[in-house]
Parts: sequence; structure tokens; C-alpha cells
Amino acid sequence: MKRVGIVGDGYTAAELLRLLLPMDEYDVTYISSADNIGTAVSALYPQFGDMTQLVCEPTATEAIISRCDGVFLALPHGQSMPLAAALIEAGLYCVDLGADFRLRDAGLYRSYYELEHTAPELLSTAVYGIPELYREQIAVARLIANPGCFPTSAIMPLVPLLAAGLIEHKGIIVDSKSGVSGAGRGMKETSHYCNVNEGVHPYGVGTHRHAPEIRQQLELAAAGSVQMVFTPHLIPMSRGILTTTYSYLADGANEGDARAALAQAYKGEYFVHLLPPGQWPHTRWVYASNHVQISLAQDKDSHILTAVCAIDNLCRGASAQAVQNMNLMLGIPERRGLELIGLYP
Amino acid sequence: MKRVGIVGDGYTAAELLRLLLPMDEYDVTYISSADNIGTAVSALYPQFGDMTQLVCEPTATEAIISRCDGVFLALPHGQSMPLAAALIEAGLYCVDLGADFRLRDAGLYRSYYELEHTAPELLSTAVYGIPELYREQIAVARLIANPGCFPTSAIMPLVPLLAAGLIEHKGIIVDSKSGVSGAGRGMKETSHYCNVNEGVHPYGVGTHRHAPEIRQQLELAAAGSVQMVFTPHLIPMSRGILTTTYSYLADGANEGDARAALAQAYKGEYFVHLLPPGQWPHTRWVYASNHVQISLAQDKDSHILTAVCAIDNLCRGASAQAVQNMNLMLGIPERRGLELIGLYP
Amino acid sequence: MKRVGIVGDGYTAAELLRLLLPMDEYDVTYISSADNIGTAVSALYPQFGDMTQLVCEPTATEAIISRCDGVFLALPHGQSMPLAAALIEAGLYCVDLGADFRLRDAGLYRSYYELEHTAPELLSTAVYGIPELYREQIAVARLIANPGCFPTSAIMPLVPLLAAGLIEHKGIIVDSKSGVSGAGRGMKETSHYCNVNEGVHPYGVGTHRHAPEIRQQLELAAAGSVQMVFTPHLIPMSRGILTTTYSYLADGANEGDARAALAQAYKGEYFVHLLPPGQWPHTRWVYASNHVQISLAQDKDSHILTAVCAIDNLCRGASAQAVQNMNLMLGIPERRGLELIGLYP
Amino acid sequence: MKRVGIVGDGYTAAELLRLLLPMDEYDVTYISSADNIGTAVSALYPQFGDMTQLVCEPTATEAIISRCDGVFLALPHGQSMPLAAALIEAGLYCVDLGADFRLRDAGLYRSYYELEHTAPELLSTAVYGIPELYREQIAVARLIANPGCFPTSAIMPLVPLLAAGLIEHKGIIVDSKSGVSGAGRGMKETSHYCNVNEGVHPYGVGTHRHAPEIRQQLELAAAGSVQMVFTPHLIPMSRGILTTTYSYLADGANEGDARAALAQAYKGEYFVHLLPPGQWPHTRWVYASNHVQISLAQDKDSHILTAVCAIDNLCRGASAQAVQNMNLMLGIPERRGLELIGLYP
Repeated sequence: MKRVGIVGDGYTAAELLRLLLPMDEYDVTYISSADNIGTAVSALYPQFGDMTQLVCEPTATEAIISRCDGVFLALPHGQSMPLAAALIEAGLYCVDLGADFRLRDAGLYRSYYELEHTAPELLSTAVYGIPELYREQIAVARLIANPGCFPTSAIMPLVPLLAAGLIEHKGIIVDSKSGVSGAGRGMKETSHYCNVNEGVHPYGVGTHRHAPEIRQQLELAAAGSVQMVFTPHLIPMSRGILTTTYSYLADGANEGDARAALAQAYKGEYFVHLLPPGQWPHTRWVYASNHVQISLAQDKDSHILTAVCAIDNLCRGASAQAVQNMNLMLGIPERRGLELIGLYP
Repeated sequence: MKRVGIVGDGYTAAELLRLLLPMDEYDVTYISSADNIGTAVSALYPQFGDMTQLVCEPTATEAIISRCDGVFLALPHGQSMPLAAALIEAGLYCVDLGADFRLRDAGLYRSYYELEHTAPELLSTAVYGIPELYREQIAVARLIANPGCFPTSAIMPLVPLLAAGLIEHKGIIVDSKSGVSGAGRGMKETSHYCNVNEGVHPYGVGTHRHAPEIRQQLELAAAGSVQMVFTPHLIPMSRGILTTTYSYLADGANEGDARAALAQAYKGEYFVHLLPPGQWPHTRWVYASNHVQISLAQDKDSHILTAVCAIDNLCRGASAQAVQNMNLMLGIPERRGLELIGLYP
Repeated sequence: MKRVGIVGDGYTAAELLRLLLPMDEYDVTYISSADNIGTAVSALYPQFGDMTQLVCEPTATEAIISRCDGVFLALPHGQSMPLAAALIEAGLYCVDLGADFRLRDAGLYRSYYELEHTAPELLSTAVYGIPELYREQIAVARLIANPGCFPTSAIMPLVPLLAAGLIEHKGIIVDSKSGVSGAGRGMKETSHYCNVNEGVHPYGVGTHRHAPEIRQQLELAAAGSVQMVFTPHLIPMSRGILTTTYSYLADGANEGDARAALAQAYKGEYFVHLLPPGQWPHTRWVYASNHVQISLAQDKDSHILTAVCAIDNLCRGASAQAVQNMNLMLGIPERRGLELIGLYP
Repeated sequence: MKRVGIVGDGYTAAELLRLLLPMDEYDVTYISSADNIGTAVSALYPQFGDMTQLVCEPTATEAIISRCDGVFLALPHGQSMPLAAALIEAGLYCVDLGADFRLRDAGLYRSYYELEHTAPELLSTAVYGIPELYREQIAVARLIANPGCFPTSAIMPLVPLLAAGLIEHKGIIVDSKSGVSGAGRGMKETSHYCNVNEGVHPYGVGTHRHAPEIRQQLELAAAGSVQMVFTPHLIPMSRGILTTTYSYLADGANEGDARAALAQAYKGEYFVHLLPPGQWPHTRWVYASNHVQISLAQDKDSHILTAVCAIDNLCRGASAQAVQNMNLMLGIPERRGLELIGLYP
């Protein structure tokens, strides 16, 4: 049994606990908080009842090192950088659910997050944690940059297509629809029930921090620059992301080639489901699970390819993927604890 | 006071009644139904209480002609064609909320609706009913093809841009997010609460009947062929459509030009609101109203223009626009009965 | 045309504007705010677009007096007391949508609101504003205590039954289910989308401030003390209250008597709908309107009477009832501006 | 590993599969359907993807007997009676999720379900399956009458109070609020998204079939007749039931006694959570889990006790409780497969 800690007490931390507490492989020995020090997890999140006795502690590097083999960092950007450096140094395994190690370019980080990166030396060793794409690197890593929710949903359908040279590098559109939990537990006007319910609107148009993260992974796959526009929309639901991508099939490529490339890329992958032609992803079918659905079609009058991906933003888009990464690093069977089936109805 | 009738008893019929009953300018003298003949409107739609004594009648051309000056046809496709011909012949004013007169090409109609058009001679006289774009023709028309909900939301931002030559004719993406009421009152698995709630999915990808309708209007504006991909998504709300369009700015054109073209096209229009840079449409702000919100931005790294439009699908996307058209045809002040402000919260 | 002002900028203020702006009888000349001074109403509530040029001002008694004939006070409790006294003194007509003048007993006010009442002399002149029950007093009043949303929904079915001596004064249960907008625009954990969506819970059990307000009106109708338990529940919707009441039919009374008493009490009332036996209120049917639905049934094995009432909490439960009251005070036809039909779907 | 079958393909069947498929203790060898014979479970419920190869078969007694040790009957009322008799006869263990074995009185069954009971001899041997109340009987049973969702939520707080003589047998009010999934997968007007969303209404007032089921269990606990009124309400959510009960404390009893009785009754029960004074159940905290939350308070001015219970209607109110019962009958550790924590957010 591995001892793990969670740094942070927001929605992704709660989702980690939901997944980890019933597992035999892990003993959650530590959780920390900025605002709720001394508060029992069960007081903060009554769904845990008497199923855990954990109490939020201050974030203390020494305590983490002495009590944990692995640690999940579920912190606002900027706060993981110094902590991860110390924990890695002490030999712990880290999965950072925040943004600090996702961008390889410290300059890009500074420009989007308005902060100087304080551990740039770790950027090259951090592995971007989509197991189906980077399993081997993850298995030998010490530090995982757990992907953002939108990036996961955009990268999974697009990376195999770019890697296979089947779509153009220009004119990629990523139109995402997300539930509200992605905005976190904090009180914001845009999370007020009356603002969300019965409405839909775009946000962060042209400025969302997940855009450079998506572009970076697409460019790695394309081995060249990629022109991509990303627009997220907030829709009235708690969980789920559906991402609709539009791209141009390369000369000579068609829908069948694209479908074959995805089938090949995700062959044998337990969590990834390429739906048959004519069937489209629905976030309900992957709700509260680590599963991913993908489908695609070519426009009958053009070379435009529509590829759609559905995930649960808190599970595959954050905490379940984090557990999958931790399992891989710690030598635990990859699927363990993640065999939850999409919740429907 | 003008005598008007409604043929049909679905959601758009109910929405027409909601708008028409409080108006002094109209006397609703007739409503017909296929399935609920003899049923009081108030039994079918208890929100009307004792505010109307209307009872659903069989659809009978003679009754309509003798009791109505104008008529709203709110029927499944295929059923308006013969009826409209007879009513126009008898001198009535018709607004068809269905699809029978929207496509100018009877062949295209046949191909998408799998029916032979029985009144092709009316296709050239029917006016496509977006008042802000076709006001003069509407004012002298006898037959209005009331636009589809998705087309309204796509055409209003794109037509002025195409007409001004500011965007390319190729590579236009129309990604729409709609509430459920657009699918109507009938029982369908996809309208079951448990299927819709907490989920999002695309549908009709590559096959939706609103695609040729959108393309037709874009091509008229562009005076040439247009390559456009349309993908609707069902999201968990009753009302509202948000349409996000992506297009390529023409050589030399920029965001400012696009904004100026829309400002010019909708100058002085009471119902159309071009939001300032950085503010984006939200369907809540036009909820249950005839208002339209539009905004746009150019991607900072490319010529891709994102233009977004929000409407209420049953109001501006159907019944309120129908009343606006009928007002225009019958010489009633255009805004009358439509001064409802977006319902929020 | 009457000049009216609104003091406050929360949801009930926005709802007042939605109702008042399209009316010919009123000119809204003033709106004030605590937190948004200098902000245009349309910036705060984009649904108003360019339909109003009002800008939030500081709350200033002199400004109100010089620019208004009537004023709506939409303030947190405690803030209306001093203001109302000055405005009444200056001859204005006031509708207080807050709680300051609802309880006739200043001691009860102190005990529930933890504040000393500063204008106790007004408590006896303020009229409790349910027009269907107190129309004559309202018509000659200067100060209306606009009822709370829950009280409106409980009083309307129960008062006629108590007044007619048809139900016992003991053992009255009031179980209410409310949408979230009743909690207002402020950021609270319990208004966070993720807390509300897909969940239901009771709140304020035994402590809610609407309990003494309900009890007071029931006791006035009963001309004696009443034992009543009130439990509100928060349910996942923006608008609407459904109140289910349970009471004991008095000896010799039956369901028919109860039905007859309600029919008599609301005979000819445009906004109140007593549904036939077997049909039950649905908040959708009164959504965003001033209408009220009531129905009832006697348990077949006992004398327990179940009476149910549906209203829209922001409309009939606040702003529309406030306009109805203002209409009455200012001699405007009572229904004017309120002929909105329940929004469905 | 025990071989189990599922008869039926509705929501509770899908929920059984969600729970059973990841379990090592069970092998689901059979599923049958009336309408979807030959259809793969994954086609009917895409959330199962390639996680099961089960295909819906016709309901055939012989097949069940030859391939199953235990069987879950998830059928409309009337259909389990003949099947259960044959399966019990053949030595299988049966959990009936339908209503056929819940009422001990065949006459009451006839009166509420309008059917003659065809296996009345089984009524006395069927055990009512709330494990925390009837664990010993369940462990030695062959046939479990799995409780209705509303009854579970009403019985769990009330039975210990009645058994301890702490509340009166008269004047018990059970006011329940349920999500839509309880109405099943079939297409009904009342399950249409637009009918449910943003609305609340009572239904089945005075006629709901769960009323005699609740009353029977209360009367068994009270060892005498009980007067109880049950009113269910449909609220806009997919899952969850909150039941608010009102009863009269017996002479000399108080809130502390009631709380102590519940604490005693559910002492050491993993799934049942008696919340501390002032904290109230929220269906979100038990969402998609087998957990139960209960709290209570006495009205400060009377002997009226308000006791509230939250469950997930498909889990504790149906399929998870069914698995708990099957575990008990088959000697599998009771909690196995049910350690899912309430899903929040």
C-alpha cells in the first residue's frame, strides 16, 4: 500500500478522494488546505461522512515528505512550482493537476500566467500525462504535468491525426462545451446558479490559458507549427466536456484514413472508445468516469473533418487521469480504481 | 383589429398564443390541431388558464378563410404547401413557420425533405422572413417563409459580412448549441429529461436540414457559392441557441471592418445588439424575447474571425419573428407585442 | 405617466425593470445601488441593452422625493425603515419589497431580524400587499409591505380556509419548494451551480424568517392563534415556488366546502386559478407571470386536507405583486403591465 | 463467483449493471428484455462500451434457471409474480425490484395495482429488503421484495421512531421530492425535458402506489394502524429523493429521544448517516451511492417533529439496495460493490 497525499481542497481534490478512498492500493495520509486548516474533510464535503477521518492541514513540505510516497498537487497555478521541486528532490512521485508544468516554454508560461517560472529546470523532465499517448515516459517519470480538461479533450482526437499527417496544420478549430465544475469551487458570478442555468455563452475567447497548452501538444505531434483557434463555452451542467474540432484533411486523405489512424492509436486502450460512423459522443456516457469517446466524419462537400470527443472534466479531465498517472509511476495496475462506468441516467 | 389563426398546436403555436393573446392588434379566432381536435387550448397548455376560450379545431381551409385575415402555419414540413397555396389564393396573409417555403430550389427541398414540392410556383414569391435583412420585401409579401431557428442565428452575423465581402466564401464553420424545445413537443428518446440533463452531444452531423437553408442565404449574400459546415449540439436547457461561427477574413480585412459592417447593417435596429469588443452573447440575456446579440473577434495569430450570435429559439427563432413578419405585412407597428425584455434570472 | 424609482439593484429590482420599462403608465426615473454606483443598468443586466439609459445612483432621499411619485424599495431588511419614513412623510407612495413592514409586532421583528425597528409607528399603517385579499386597504394606502415569496404561496390557499372556519388552527404544515433566485444575486456557497444542480435539501428549518410572517397572516384570518410549521427546500431551478400545505378539516367540513371557500374568495380574480379536482399546480404554468394556481384534495382515510399553490417567486412572490400594488395605489388599472402569460416551455 | 441474471432492461437494470460489472463476486450471465431482444446492452446503453458483451434475450425461465444462481427481476408490476414462483421453486435466489411482493395483503395489491395476485403463497415468505432493518431475515431468504424508492426514504427515518413508541400513529405527513429517473426510461409527457426543467409539481396525490407500501411498514413498526398522507413531487433532476416527514412526538418524548432512537437503530451501519443537529440531508451528498442521510428537529412551539431523509432513488432506492440484499442472501460481504461515495459535484 502506497502512502499518498493531496495538496489542495477544491473539486479536483474531492474527486481524488472519491477515487482513492475505496482503493486498497493507496492510503491517503495527508491533505492540506489554504482556507480550511483544521477542518475535517467530511465537514467540507459531507459526502464523505465517516468514511474518512482526514483533517485539512497546512501545506508543509516536511510533513508531506515524511508521510507520503506520492503526492497530488491540486493547487492554483504558481503554487506547485516551488513545492514540486522540493518533493521531487526528496524522492517523491508528483502529479501536478495544476498548470505549472504543462508548458515547456517558461516564456510562454510567463506570458499566459503572468508569473516568472521558478523551477524551469523541471519543465524538461515533467511528462505530459495522457497515458494513452505517453505511457512509457510516464512509467519512468517523477513529475507528471496532468493535462488541463479542455486540452485532454482536444488532444486525444487531434494528436493521432496530426502525427499521421492526415490533417492540415492550418485552420484547426477547437470548439468546446464545458460544465461548470471546471471553474472550481470558488464563488464567482459566472458560477451562480441563475447565471448558468438555462443559458450558454462563450468565454475566454482568444485568451484562455488552455489554448497554448493545446497548441503545444498539437505542434509536438505535427512536428511543426500549428494554427489553432480555441473557444470554450459554459453550458448548464456540473460535469462534462464535449469538444468539437474542425480541421482540413490533407491532400489525398479521407475520413476512412482518419478513422483508421485513431483506431490504431487507441487499439486495445480500455478507456478510449472510437464510436462507429454515425454515432457521436455524448458526455452522459462517460459521466463521472475515466472513459473517452471519440467519433468523426468528413463533410460531404469539402475536406473539412469534424472530430468530436467527450470526457468528464473532473475525472478524465483531472483527477482520474491523475490517478491513472500515479498508478503508472508507482507500478500499480493502470486501470485500478478507475473501472467506474459512465453514470447514466 | 386583425383576425388571425394558428394552424398547429405544438410549442411554436403555444409561443404564438403567449405573444398574441395580450395584444390589442390581433384577435386570435382560430387554432387547429391534428391530434387534439376538440380539446381546449387551456387543457393542452394550462398556462393559458381562462385567458382564452379557444378550442382546437380540425384544419379546414374554408374555416380559416372565413375567419382570418392572417394565418400562422406551424406544421411539420410537407403540410404547409397545399394549405398555403389555397390561403394565398383566397387573399390571406401567411407566415409559414415550417420549412416548406424556405428553400428556393424544389430539388434541394426534395433531396433534404424526401418529398416532392407541391407548390413550387410559390417558392419565388415567398419572402425569407428576417425583417432586419428583408424588411421591404416582407412588407409587400403575402407569404413569409419564417426562418429556422439555427439559420436565424447563423445568418444574422454572417450575411452582412459576406455581403460586404469581408470574409472568405470557403471554410465557414457554424457550430450551434441549442436547447431542447427546438425538437418540439413530441415524445422522443432524445427529449427525455434523463437523456438531456447533465449532458451534451452533437446531432444531425452532416445531415441537418437547416444546413441547406443556411447555405442558401449565405450564397445569396455572397452572390456565389459558399462552403459551410454546420454542426448542431443539444445542450441541457429548454430555450436558447448560441451559434459560434468561424470564418476567414478576406485579404486586407480585419476585425474592425467586420464590426463596422455589422454595426452598419443593424444600425437603428431595436432588436439587434452588437456587443462591444470583449463582451460576448449569452442566451440568458435574450431569453424568451425577440432580441439578438452578436459579437466577434479576430484570432490574434491568424485571419480567423469568430462571430457569435445568441437568440431564443422559440421567440426570435420562430414565433416572435413570425409575429414581427405578420406585423409588417399587416401594417401594424413592427415591434408591437414584442417589447418583452430578456428574462433573467 | 407616473414617475417611479427603484431603490436597490438585485434580482427583484431587475424584475421590476423588466415589468415597468415596457409600460406606458410609468416612467422609471431613478435607480439606486450600494455597490454599483455609476454603473449603467445595462452593464449590470445586459438583457436591457439600449432599452434603458438608467445608471445606478447613490440612495439619496432628496433625489427620490424630487424625481418620483412612487418608489419601490428592494433592499435588505433594516434598510427600508428609515427611508420609507422620510418618503411617506414627503408624500410618496412606497412599496417595500423587503421585510421591514411585514410583521406588525416590532418585538417579533427584533427577535427574527435581530434589529430594533426604527419606524414602529408605520407598522400599523403599512398594508400587507396581497391585492386579492386586501385590495381596498391597498387602494388607499401610502405604504405597502410587499409579502415574502413563501408567505404569498402559503397565505393564498390557507387564509380563505381559516377565515371560513374550515380548517383547524393546529397542525398546519407548510412544505415549500423554491428555486434559487429567491436567495438573491449575492455569491453564496448555496447558490453555486454545483451545489444546487441535481440536488434538493431543506434549509432554515425552524428558523426561517418567513415563518412568523406566514403565521401572522394565518392568525389574522383565524382570529386566534395558529400552530404552523414551515419548511422551505431549495430545488434546482431558477424561478418558482410550489407550496404544499397540510391541515385538518374542521369537524363537519369536507373537501367540497374547502373548494367552495376558495372559489368564493377568488371569484372573478384574473390572476388566481383554482384548478379542478385532480389537476395540480405546476410552477411552469405560472412561470415569469403574476398568476397563481391552487388546488386541493382531502385524504380519503382522514380529515387531512392537502392544498397546493404555485407561483413565480420573483413575479407574484415579489416584483409583479409590487407593481400590482403600486397600480392600485396610483389608480392605474390593476392588471396593467402584468398580463404576461406563464412561460412554457 | 456467483452467476446472476437481470430480467428487464430499464434504468434499474442499467444501474444494476453499473454496479455488478466491476465486481469480482458476480458474473452477469443473462439479461432479458421485452422490446429489445437481440440488441446488445452496449447499443442500448452506450456507457457500457466494450465493457460487456451481453445481449438482451427473451425472458425464458429455463435459461435463467440453467445459467444463474441469483436473479434480479426489474419488471413492471404483475410480471414478476409468475416468474419468481418458478425461479424460487428451482432453487434460485430472487430480488424483485418491482412491486409484486411488497404488499403482504393480496387484496391491497389487487386494489392498488388492479391485478389479481397469482402467487399469494409467496407473500408471506418474501422479505422486505431494507437490510438495516431486516438483515437477519434477508440473510436466510430466497425472495426479496426490494422496497420502492419513496418507501425506503420514508421508512428509514420513521420506523425506528414508531418502533420506539416516540411518535403518534396519527397525522404522519410524508412529503417527497423526487428526480425524474424514478418514472423510468419510457417516453411520457411528464418526462419530457421541457415539462420537467425549471418546474415542480405534485403528482399521484392520494393515489400513489407507494402509499400502502409505506403504511404497511409503518404499521408493522407501530404494531397498529397508522394514519399517513403521502405526497410525491417531481423536481428537475435526474436522480435523488428527499423525503420530509412531519409527525407528532408522543407525550413526554422530545427531539433528543427521537435522535437517540435513530442513533441506536443505525448504530454501526456503514451506509446510514444520522447528521448532527442543525445539519440537514442533501441528495447531492448521497448521489449515485447506497448511502442514506437522516436528520430531524422538533418545532420549538409544538410537538411536531420534522425528520428528513435523502437517498439516491436508483441506487439506495432500487439497484444498490438490491445488490446489498443479494450479497446478504449469497453470503457475499454486505458492502461489496457498494463502496461508491456520493458523487459531488
